[in-house]
Amino acid sequence: MENFSFYSPTEFVFGKGTENSCGEYVKKYGGSKVLIHYGSGSAVKSGLLARVKDSLNKCGIPYVELGGVKPNPRDTLIYEGIKLCRDEKVDFILSVGGGSCIDSSKGIALGVPYDGDFWDFYSTDKEVKEALPIGTVLTIAAAGSEGSGGSVVTKEDGMLKRDAGSDLLRPRFSILNPLLTCTLPAYQTACGATDIMAHVFERYFTNTKEVEITDRLCEAVLLTMVKETPRVIADPNNYEARANIMWAGTVAHNDIVGVGRSQDWNSHGIEHELSGLYDCAHGAGLAVIMPAWMEFVYKHDVMRFAQMAVRVWGCEMNFENPEETALKGIACFRKFLHEIGMPINFSELGAKEEDIPVLVEKFGLGDGKTGGFVALSSEDVAKIYGIAAKATL
Amino acid sequence: MENFSFYSPTEFVFGKGTENSCGEYVKKYGGSKVLIHYGSGSAVKSGLLARVKDSLNKCGIPYVELGGVKPNPRDTLIYEGIKLCRDEKVDFILSVGGGSCIDSSKGIALGVPYDGDFWDFYSTDKEVKEALPIGTVLTIAAAGSEGSGGSVVTKEDGMLKRDAGSDLLRPRFSILNPLLTCTLPAYQTACGATDIMAHVFERYFTNTKEVEITDRLCEAVLLTMVKETPRVIADPNNYEARANIMWAGTVAHNDIVGVGRSQDWNSHGIEHELSGLYDCAHGAGLAVIMPAWMEFVYKHDVMRFAQMAVRVWGCEMNFENPEETALKGIACFRKFLHEIGMPINFSELGAKEEDIPVLVEKFGLGDGKTGGFVALSSEDVAKIYGIAAKATL
Repeated sequence: MENFSFYSPTEFVFGKGTENSCGEYVKKYGGSKVLIHYGSGSAVKSGLLARVKDSLNKCGIPYVELGGVKPNPRDTLIYEGIKLCRDEKVDFILSVGGGSCIDSSKGIALGVPYDGDFWDFYSTDKEVKEALPIGTVLTIAAAGSEGSGGSVVTKEDGMLKRDAGSDLLRPRFSILNPLLTCTLPAYQTACGATDIMAHVFERYFTNTKEVEITDRLCEAVLLTMVKETPRVIADPNNYEARANIMWAGTVAHNDIVGVGRSQDWNSHGIEHELSGLYDCAHGAGLAVIMPAWMEFVYKHDVMRFAQMAVRVWGCEMNFENPEETALKGIACFRKFLHEIGMPINFSELGAKEEDIPVLVEKFGLGDGKTGGFVALSSEDVAKIYGIAAKATL
Repeated sequence: MENFSFYSPTEFVFGKGTENSCGEYVKKYGGSKVLIHYGSGSAVKSGLLARVKDSLNKCGIPYVELGGVKPNPRDTLIYEGIKLCRDEKVDFILSVGGGSCIDSSKGIALGVPYDGDFWDFYSTDKEVKEALPIGTVLTIAAAGSEGSGGSVVTKEDGMLKRDAGSDLLRPRFSILNPLLTCTLPAYQTACGATDIMAHVFERYFTNTKEVEITDRLCEAVLLTMVKETPRVIADPNNYEARANIMWAGTVAHNDIVGVGRSQDWNSHGIEHELSGLYDCAHGAGLAVIMPAWMEFVYKHDVMRFAQMAVRVWGCEMNFENPEETALKGIACFRKFLHEIGMPINFSELGAKEEDIPVLVEKFGLGDGKTGGFVALSSEDVAKIYGIAAKATL
């Protein structure tokens, strides 16, 4: 096991009705003037925003609001948010929405106290030294941003998708009410589930040996997703299945399943160019990319893929031919994604094979290599896009 | 899933050599004058205490010290520690040792700012409103106190073992270097492993339905312990196995494997009277009590015990007779404990069957009942002691 530091100080408040106490938590964590940041009209229509405001009012906490966060949140709205926070002397950001909304809030949070352009933290390795505190009311189980220090933002000009990270961006509290996710369309639910599983797989495929505890924790989250996702697709109002998925989504990405080992993260990077270029859902892009990535790299460690096949997908181990087991596991994953309604190739996603050179170019690897499990070149990335383009069941 | 709040703000610093940066972490978390609290001479002999002091010196942090913590830490030393901290204006407690040392530190931490007798927090439900901050350098994987808000202390007068708990008692940081555990005798290592597994089982046996994510996380920790414990017993210097166990011990008890569900905790309560009366190791007492408790309660939920048997112990499910599978799982657990060198009955532990009435009396249930999985009466507790007294493989 490699040396590591694990720090997840967020207070998670989980269950029915918990959004009604968001005012108390803002107070507990020192907020005296709040920016309520949210996305589309659904938080308004569902009455969630009204309940959030009610809770703030009851606690005597003034607020301003900024809606309009889109999936793949844009830099342009963040500039607007930073100005609003400065003008209104906001000292706490309350994100009401999904991962995009939280990531946009994080962009604002690090931008407000910073003299330069907030994009510096996304376009370079510049270290975050200060940020406004954030709280979240989560409305979709997917990104895990409610428990992470990461943020992914898209620069409107050129649709460049880049990330920033710091422990200072970890939310002070996150309110998770699974009931809020029951109104999500099946497609979005499945995109979220795919994202959660991808967060685990990025950590599962490691070159660090003998990390049984994190292997098993990874498998715990994956097994949960394999059981619960089809249940919510079949019955969107299944509270217990929604609850298991929602908590799995947080556990998948606060790094408890990833500490002490090398991690890969190439599938995320390769996907980012798809959702950047086509503005498709991140989860849908991952459904197309991740099994293709697996097929491209599995020979690097056949036994690890066989382990996934046996422990996660319940495959029988072929002791005479572990490679067959490994490939069966990958096939199970793709079939699962198909069954929950995810695209499995470029045409189902709305991407074009002829754009591959553009995607590779935007990925920006040049002559370099990247990846914690298998280091990939631009050529390798092109091949993975190629597998993803043509994939079938 | 039940509504819950999960809050584990401790910064865990894991790996080789990490104790050498304890001074920096004390500084980071605001300590300006430290009490170094430790147990026996082993921290002195091994040179650990010298390294800790060296790190504090390098950071210019003054300290006083108080050694002498015993297993089943005593109230008497805590009174001494409280006085010392007040006299010396200590504002940070650094625990260098195992669970007993941390629990003793927590007793001092809550006692220093409190006007009354610190024992009030242990003997009643009195809420902790204030406590000195704590940091830990852990030397044994067992109690999980490095990541929990709980503390168990024994009152010397009458050997009463009682607990207190508060988020304010969660350490600010915990330094976990698995190398420090390599010098532990096999018996203590096995006691620690048993305690870790018991922390999971107390949460695993629940009446809450459909909590797949926490079930699977519980099983992740248990599977790790089943694999790694025999490896460290066979080879005390196996760093990777030590590392897996150490991190499993923390995960087992910061409640990530227990949220959103009822928990039991009777085995711990029943054991506490054994280690209270005979001053035996807590883990050894649990090895005797926990399988006996399982045998007494398994009919309450045969399928849950069958699940443990199949998923944790790798038993074949007997679909015609699940009860047989359930009992096989319990037998596997007891056999495992025996194989790692733990006692499995009263005589191996050094307890006496004729003391059972005394143990039940001290347990103090009177005509009441207690327990989150199965509510037990005094009579039930006596029966469990009876099963434990006579158990064989």
